Order: sequence, then C-alpha cells, then structure tokens
Amino acid sequence: MYKIVLMRHGESQWNLDNRFTGWTDVDLTEKGREEARKAGELLQREGYGFDVAYTSVLKRAIRTLWIALDTMDAMYLPVINSWRLNERHYGALQGMNKSETAAKYGDEQVLIWRRAYAIAPNPLDIDDERHPRFDPRYSALSAAELPATECLKDTVERVVPYWNESIAPAIKAGKRVLIAAHGNSLRALIKHLDNVSDDEIVGLNIPTAQPLVYELDENLKPIKHYYLGNADEIAAAMAAVAAQGKAKAK
Amino acid sequence: MYKIVLMRHGESQWNLDNRFTGWTDVDLTEKGREEARKAGELLQREGYGFDVAYTSVLKRAIRTLWIALDTMDAMYLPVINSWRLNERHYGALQGMNKSETAAKYGDEQVLIWRRAYAIAPNPLDIDDERHPRFDPRYSALSAAELPATECLKDTVERVVPYWNESIAPAIKAGKRVLIAAHGNSLRALIKHLDNVSDDEIVGLNIPTAQPLVYELDENLKPIKHYYLGNADEIAAAMAAVAAQGKAKAK
Repeated sequence: MYKIVLMRHGESQWNLDNRFTGWTDVDLTEKGREEARKAGELLQREGYGFDVAYTSVLKRAIRTLWIALDTMDAMYLPVINSWRLNERHYGALQGMNKSETAAKYGDEQVLIWRRAYAIAPNPLDIDDERHPRFDPRYSALSAAELPATECLKDTVERVVPYWNESIAPAIKAGKRVLIAAHGNSLRALIKHLDNVSDDEIVGLNIPTAQPLVYELDENLKPIKHYYLGNADEIAAAMAAVAAQGKAKAK
Repeated sequence: MYKIVLMRHGESQWNLDNRFTGWTDVDLTEKGREEARKAGELLQREGYGFDVAYTSVLKRAIRTLWIALDTMDAMYLPVINSWRLNERHYGALQGMNKSETAAKYGDEQVLIWRRAYAIAPNPLDIDDERHPRFDPRYSALSAAELPATECLKDTVERVVPYWNESIAPAIKAGKRVLIAAHGNSLRALIKHLDNVSDDEIVGLNIPTAQPLVYELDENLKPIKHYYLGNADEIAAAMAAVAAQGKAKAK
C-alpha cells in the first residue's frame, strides 16, 4: 500500500482580490503563507516524511511547498516542477475582476465557464502579452502543448499523462510523494484517481493548504482518502471555498 | 562559449558563532538572507537568466538559492540538490567552537586541519549522533560514499565526478547554470576548472553570496572569470573571509 499527500496552495493575492488567476503568476498573501506553515507543522506532527515533491511552475504553489518543506526541516527534498500541474488556464478571463466579468458577459455565461466540464472561456489572442508563449518558463513547450485557454477537461488531459509518466512510477518505486498544486489540477488528479464523473468533479471543493492523504493499492487505486487536519476546520475551509465559488459568479 | 555562475551561501549562524560547521545543517542569519537578496538583485540587474540551478542538501546553500531565485522572479527554475555539493565534512570538529578547538588541539594542529590539502580532522565515530548515516537525506548513499571526515582533497574527489557527470553535460546541452554551494565545494570545483595547485587552492578565499561568473570554452575550459559585484565590495568581502580564516585558528 502507498500513501501520498495532495495539497492546494494557500490564499493568493488574487483569491483575495476576486480576480481570475489561471496561469497568472500571483503570489501568496501573508495568510496564505501562514496556511502553508500550518500545513507543514501538521504533516510533521503527524509523522509524515517524503522522498520527493511535485509542484507546478507557479509561485503560489511553489512557495506553499517551500514554506511547508522549510517548516518540516526538509528543504533538501528533491522538488520537481511541471507546467502540467499548473492551475487550469483561464484564457481571456485571466486578470479580470470576477464582478466585472459577470457584468460584461452575464452571470449565466460566467457560471458556464466556471462550472461546465468541457466549455472553455475565450482564448487569449496569440499576440496578447498574457499569452504563455511570451513567458520563458514555457519556452520548451510546443505550440500544440501551450494552452491559450482551458476547460477542466483540458486540464485533466494534461495532468493525467504527467501522473502516469512521472508521478505514478515514483510512487511504485517506493517514493513517498507530496504534491503541491492548484484547485483544478488537483481536481483533475482526483477525477482520475477516484473515477469521478464529469458532472460531479466540477462541484468538488478542495480547501487551501490542507494536506489530503490518499492511500493507494498496488495498482494505485485509492483505498481511502482523508484530510489530516481537524474535521471542523476542514468543513469550515470547504464551506469557505464553496461560498467563494458562489460569490465569483456574481 | 558558455557562461556559468557560482555562488557561495550567505552568512550562516555558525559563521557568526565561530563554530566548525561542515555538514551540520545550520541556517542563514538575517544578514545572510540579505546577502542572498542582493545577489539576486545583482544577477537580475545584470541581465542573467538561468535554465537550471544546482545546490547542496544543506539549507544555508538552498536558502541562499531560494532567496536569489525569488528575488529574480524565477522560483519555477528546476533545482537539483546533491550531497556532492555539500561543504567539506569537518569530522569530529563539527559543532566545536574554533577557539575551544585551538585550546584543545593547539593552534598548529588546527591550522593543519584547516589548511593542509590532504590532512583530514579526526573522523566522527560511527555511533556519533552527528554521523551522516543517521540523517535521512543521506539514506541512499553507500557506506563507502558517506564521509565521517574530509580533507579538501576528499571534497575535490566527490565534487569533480558530479561536475563531470551532471553539471558539465547540462552546460554542453546549452543550459544556463547557476551553482549555489559552499566555500570548499566551490574551491574544489575551481581547482578542477582552473587547474589550481594543491598548495594554492587552500589559500583561495571566496566571498559569501557574490555571483562569480566563469566563461568557458567549448571544452568547458575557463576563458576568464570575474565577480559581478562592485570591485571595492568584493575586495572587502574577500578580506573579511581571509581575516575570518585567521581568527578561526586562534
């Protein structure tokens, strides 16, 4: 049996500002940093140790991981960064205030972009300065790989190959794996692991910086999963994420 | 032609406390963190970008790198940690105050341990709790690889294979490399690159957190090297390191 830990990044500045973030490289707030420290303390108190950590190329996830590793006195751990663990790309909505977006496109359209499994927002124009082709961290990616927008289905389709080709072999080799990522890249992974339906996965809320343990059998099928933290705190954090979801569409 | 940057970690707590550090995992002081930030600012101001960074498994080097990368807005860079870039292992002297050591063993003996190329301090006892075999970060190393003490010659003999097998191929593949390491692992590397004699290398002082650029030809032989910072500051920093060296033997 294997055990892995998934962790969504702590609060970012644009969570706070109510803007669509996606691949925008927004940093953690001070509260987000504190959440990451608490996650590290919790993992250490519960006796968790790791051999390798995976994260995205976005600093809100990397910093969450770095702070947790620092807190666990495990800064020496190998960290593997991949764009495939990035947040869902939010297309032309990236950087827009969620209220303004709703005013411009209507509540219903925004709700569709946020909640339909297979409908993506309008893509970034190829010459838009926000297009990832202008960012050196993506310079090794082919034009076909590089998204200008994504629906959750697209995110699943780039996360799952990374799981299969990079993370799963490490787990099967006996490595204790920690994954620090984003709401939608973790949804994508959980959809794959637990075989969640397209309709159900969009309603799954993952609280920020709460270590989520998956116990896996020898074929990496989940036996069970649970949050490490205090049950009341988790419930409150999940309710907060769900409420934020509602506020976003207004 | 290739260009790489070497950087020694900023001031650590035991630099300040005048204790032998070696593989002890001592953190940076606030001054050391500030040095790392300045190094990152300097690299960015001078237009340096990197594709991969190498560091040790000791937090004073890792944190120096993390702070520099954060300052350069390049936290997404792949970071490869290796024990082979660790500081020279200081054997039974690790953790001892330098004045106490001189009082116990005599000034002359301490000077030999510090300055003789091929004479190592007494090793840590195999059951000494400071022995690296008790540290999980070294659990994959064989007993033959794991040092209980080192002279600079030993450090050279574990750094150079890592250069040849890991770092040099990355440079030849066109990757822009940053190495954040320690006084003696960098001495070891410089000895190899510049073919410095055994006698001369022990007198080479590398200032903390000052980006040192090596320009290399197609065979990775140095064309020239230079510090990026202000010449007066570098001279002062080197003098400070040299003076610290003298104070250590007292």
